[in-house]
Amino acid sequence: MIGAAHRHAMRLDNQYVLAAGIFGRDPAASAQFAESISVERIYDDYREMSKREAARLDGVDVVAVVTPNDSHYEIAKAFLEIGISVVCEKPLTNDSASAAELAAIAESNGVILAVPHIYSAYAMVRHAARMVRNGDLGRIRFVAAEHASGWAAADVDQWRMDPAKGGMATAVADVGTHAFHLLRYITGLEATRVSAELSTLVPGRRVFDNATMRLTLSNGAPATVWATMAATGHEHGLRIRVFGDDASLEWRHEDPQHLLVRDPDGGTTILAQGMSTLSDDAARVTRVGLGHPEGFLEAFANFYSDLADMLRGNPGRELSIPTGTDGLIGVQFVEAAVASHTDDAAWVTLP
Amino acid sequence: MIGAAHRHAMRLDNQYVLAAGIFGRDPAASAQFAESISVERIYDDYREMSKREAARLDGVDVVAVVTPNDSHYEIAKAFLEIGISVVCEKPLTNDSASAAELAAIAESNGVILAVPHIYSAYAMVRHAARMVRNGDLGRIRFVAAEHASGWAAADVDQWRMDPAKGGMATAVADVGTHAFHLLRYITGLEATRVSAELSTLVPGRRVFDNATMRLTLSNGAPATVWATMAATGHEHGLRIRVFGDDASLEWRHEDPQHLLVRDPDGGTTILAQGMSTLSDDAARVTRVGLGHPEGFLEAFANFYSDLADMLRGNPGRELSIPTGTDGLIGVQFVEAAVASHTDDAAWVTLP
Amino acid sequence: MIGAAHRHAMRLDNQYVLAAGIFGRDPAASAQFAESISVERIYDDYREMSKREAARLDGVDVVAVVTPNDSHYEIAKAFLEIGISVVCEKPLTNDSASAAELAAIAESNGVILAVPHIYSAYAMVRHAARMVRNGDLGRIRFVAAEHASGWAAADVDQWRMDPAKGGMATAVADVGTHAFHLLRYITGLEATRVSAELSTLVPGRRVFDNATMRLTLSNGAPATVWATMAATGHEHGLRIRVFGDDASLEWRHEDPQHLLVRDPDGGTTILAQGMSTLSDDAARVTRVGLGHPEGFLEAFANFYSDLADMLRGNPGRELSIPTGTDGLIGVQFVEAAVASHTDDAAWVTLP
Amino acid sequence: MIGAAHRHAMRLDNQYVLAAGIFGRDPAASAQFAESISVERIYDDYREMSKREAARLDGVDVVAVVTPNDSHYEIAKAFLEIGISVVCEKPLTNDSASAAELAAIAESNGVILAVPHIYSAYAMVRHAARMVRNGDLGRIRFVAAEHASGWAAADVDQWRMDPAKGGMATAVADVGTHAFHLLRYITGLEATRVSAELSTLVPGRRVFDNATMRLTLSNGAPATVWATMAATGHEHGLRIRVFGDDASLEWRHEDPQHLLVRDPDGGTTILAQGMSTLSDDAARVTRVGLGHPEGFLEAFANFYSDLADMLRGNPGRELSIPTGTDGLIGVQFVEAAVASHTDDAAWVTLP
Repeated sequence: MIGAAHRHAMRLDNQYVLAAGIFGRDPAASAQFAESISVERIYDDYREMSKREAARLDGVDVVAVVTPNDSHYEIAKAFLEIGISVVCEKPLTNDSASAAELAAIAESNGVILAVPHIYSAYAMVRHAARMVRNGDLGRIRFVAAEHASGWAAADVDQWRMDPAKGGMATAVADVGTHAFHLLRYITGLEATRVSAELSTLVPGRRVFDNATMRLTLSNGAPATVWATMAATGHEHGLRIRVFGDDASLEWRHEDPQHLLVRDPDGGTTILAQGMSTLSDDAARVTRVGLGHPEGFLEAFANFYSDLADMLRGNPGRELSIPTGTDGLIGVQFVEAAVASHTDDAAWVTLP
Repeated sequence: MIGAAHRHAMRLDNQYVLAAGIFGRDPAASAQFAESISVERIYDDYREMSKREAARLDGVDVVAVVTPNDSHYEIAKAFLEIGISVVCEKPLTNDSASAAELAAIAESNGVILAVPHIYSAYAMVRHAARMVRNGDLGRIRFVAAEHASGWAAADVDQWRMDPAKGGMATAVADVGTHAFHLLRYITGLEATRVSAELSTLVPGRRVFDNATMRLTLSNGAPATVWATMAATGHEHGLRIRVFGDDASLEWRHEDPQHLLVRDPDGGTTILAQGMSTLSDDAARVTRVGLGHPEGFLEAFANFYSDLADMLRGNPGRELSIPTGTDGLIGVQFVEAAVASHTDDAAWVTLP
Repeated sequence: MIGAAHRHAMRLDNQYVLAAGIFGRDPAASAQFAESISVERIYDDYREMSKREAARLDGVDVVAVVTPNDSHYEIAKAFLEIGISVVCEKPLTNDSASAAELAAIAESNGVILAVPHIYSAYAMVRHAARMVRNGDLGRIRFVAAEHASGWAAADVDQWRMDPAKGGMATAVADVGTHAFHLLRYITGLEATRVSAELSTLVPGRRVFDNATMRLTLSNGAPATVWATMAATGHEHGLRIRVFGDDASLEWRHEDPQHLLVRDPDGGTTILAQGMSTLSDDAARVTRVGLGHPEGFLEAFANFYSDLADMLRGNPGRELSIPTGTDGLIGVQFVEAAVASHTDDAAWVTLP
Repeated sequence: MIGAAHRHAMRLDNQYVLAAGIFGRDPAASAQFAESISVERIYDDYREMSKREAARLDGVDVVAVVTPNDSHYEIAKAFLEIGISVVCEKPLTNDSASAAELAAIAESNGVILAVPHIYSAYAMVRHAARMVRNGDLGRIRFVAAEHASGWAAADVDQWRMDPAKGGMATAVADVGTHAFHLLRYITGLEATRVSAELSTLVPGRRVFDNATMRLTLSNGAPATVWATMAATGHEHGLRIRVFGDDASLEWRHEDPQHLLVRDPDGGTTILAQGMSTLSDDAARVTRVGLGHPEGFLEAFANFYSDLADMLRGNPGRELSIPTGTDGLIGVQFVEAAVASHTDDAAWVTLP
């Protein structure tokens, strides 16, 4: 599914050609699939791919790594080291040392390492982040973020539920990092410490599929992050509420083209994507206009569109896409949550 | 805007190449634009384009006509007559005689004439239509459809507000036909007569920007259609409620990935795109899955995807896309509404 | 049910004592019921009741007539003529001559005839009416009102479905008058003509349970009123949308403590009962405060509270409760709708 | 405000007469107010009142204690000891020893001590509790409760913000106890331990106005409770989501007449107060019916109505109103939260 989403997103704005790739562990199946989607250059091995593509004048500019978490590091490293930019699914790696290493390689080689926390590419999330930076909310006093999905509310057989592939803290790594990134993106604040309780909601599951986390933010404000994939009956369940001294915001992934703004008197204003009064940050990622919903693939395409800008060497915007540093901070967040849980939910300082 | 939407939609599922075209009345600007989107074959005149493309072995399979209403007929006719399929924006033409002619030409030449009432391509609209056909609602007893947009709630300078280009009954032709098609698509019923009151809500406007219509449906049930682009503060405003003896349905374009089903006891069930229990009609036009909103461009891409199936000669599905006949029925609806209005909102029989 | 609602409403603000009454056609059952709710003076006949109560120093100030429509006239007349104020359920009577007579009797006898269109007593409806009068919406350009209830979506055996008791045009008389009053109350406009199509949605029903109506308002603006009790799956279904040149309003009975205000740019503001910035008209009928929902009984109590003010001789407020004139206008509306229907939905001028 | 709510609620169902009382610390003002609401017997001192009322044949059956928290204990004790039932606002007292004492006195004297956590008296909360007991959700796996009000999002001068009167942990005592009770009431589970982080969101405030709490429930499931009165822009903010293996529930105080039920496939069913298929627990506290919203005062009246049943000696229902034990558990919850906070949010076992 997520591979298809990457491909849809690349196509939407006509800025990418999918020219080369590996599409699974089985070479025959990979080749067959590649042909079905008109990809010309097919490889069996990512090392070989990195070398050959780097050697071509028309080699790929960027590679998307969409594999189970435990293989991210080796694959991303191979491309980054040889000078090819990488989009690497989150969590960037399973440990912060290797995540830091990837970020450092990208930095030193002058290539881009981008991490597709797609939700921060929605127009109304961009607008929310702009409102906070404009001071429309005043000082941030509390944040409640949650990614409480129902996709694995029943037993499922998938690599994410295998501790060896996705780690034990699946809820934090798989969905918690999205909620955490969204919080950082909108507020512009970092977390300084975390307390986490991990638990397993679905009987028999071998990983933690639920996590309740407290954060202290860099301005001293408290925050909570709830992450689970076992929220029976929920759709995607990604939602954030940001409370400031002067106003509060709410955004939900099930209704992404709207942003709720609440004023201290109790009134709520619903802002809609496409309104003429929104910020440029929202307007520049709006394709159709007011009343024409844009969804997940459009947000994904926004990510790729911003990436294309960066690949062309354009100076970054203030509100753009997450990179290696954000990926590293996400992995540190997962590690700290696990450390806290191991110590009975004690506070753990973040790097 | 609508031209860009066509292009986005063609790209999304990777089944089209935009190979040739005319992009405006000014040849130089058209050529420049074509180059910017990598279109190879650029023409100044649609007749010339139709002849040359028809003569090529690799000529275009289908042409999208996205011009003001008054030019639809001549352009569509040129391509259909020479054997090239056409996607023609609604209303198909400004009079039913020419619409019927286009439909007949397509029929006799064995090519496709498709009309992009995009809203019937949303997954949850497809599911609604399936529920009605399954008998889940029982006999249809009433339908309330509305396309009450706010896009022209203030004065705007646009060809749709010029009686010479879009006709007087803009509200019916521009948005009313969408609501009417949606009603026909979901219920599977035709309208046998219409009573219409047209009015102008925005002072100084030269066309009718508001229409309240009553229909009698082919099963005898009454229905209403409200069409306007002057509904101050509305976003898109397309919404339909279908009431049966056993249940009712509601769908709104502002929240397209959900469908509300109400039971006689007063309970409401919200169905969500991506649920495993939905019909194949919904599932086959769902790209990502539960909790991942798909919007207007995805619906547009569904239209083009179904069209691609038809262009490849696959037998049509029961729930597919609107064609020339639907376009003709839409134009007849506009004409009947105007006739009714002229006769003080008297009932007018539809053909 | 409606009798109990009257009693609850009288009690809530402690301004009434239910001192006398008739509680059904069967004297024994009436007496038993009266005793169960501690009513002291019990009568078998309304004429006797009117005479005796009028003769007492501590006789009742006001009587509530909560009987089937066909008995309203005689009962209300008896009390009004003898100088006792009356609350009479809508429709006031089954014909406008008798309604006009009741209004005239009340006027000449200096007593109050009040008609419990309760919905106009909700705080947020009062606020909506104030906003219109303040000019916040600009000129009213269109109104869409509906009372589309599901209470009789299936077959029911009740006096309202008996043409002899409730008249043929049940949908207009029973629920349409509520929507119509709400429209008049909020906009401050009258209707000058109506076109109505009446129909029967539930097979076998002997009355019209559905009505689609067009109005022309006194400022020339068009409006629609949809009235039915056969909207399968709806709860109460009373909803109004008022569109002005500068903003629009929406209120729904299922969420009565909120009022939606839409601005031309597409933004929506949700106002909540209890906000400090609301008008005095809303504030004076708010008992608890922000976030504490008040419902139907509180609205009913608002009606009785305003009535108590009037009974004490306080000068009326601009935004108060409907009286005999409103009841008469409601009956005229029913008659005009029936006349229009009989003439194939032709326009009928209102008095 | 809360005193007025008690009086409204007592009146609504006509089962109480407010016969005696003290209405403030100033005897003259108290007497004047008592007269304005027709209370006959006015006292200056609660001890005197308890003695005199106990001595009368027609003395009060029950007293409502609606004073700042620090006076609850002495006043409630005086009445309970002398054999008069008490409704005492929450938190029952400021420490669990005195709360336990009150509960014990009530028990040994055979009188009722009731605690008005009103929210558990809403029809749809009762229905939710019934669904859980019926096993409709399966095993409870997670609960997220919050009472995040905006009533004190700005600085306010009130006894609740005075540590000497309301205690330091205002957020837990004032609103957290409501969310906690709601969780216990609906799930039928107790909490075995709590971890709490208290904080002050409004600059300069002397009490903790925010609390994020984790619970472990008696079946081992994790839960969270968020309590604050500083959630900028929120109305009442009371909301609960209960997740079971087979379904989940959501209820919000801003829309109290509906209950959301989510099934594992992602569908949501909205149940509405008044539906014929609801449980008797919901039906017996429904006054008007489907589509007629009942609000806070009706819920409060439900509380008083159930209390009246108990005062008449009727055997308690399974789903009735909170009593002294519930009040005690609430106070223990506050104490444990404070203890946890003092120990850096460590887990604290509940009695």
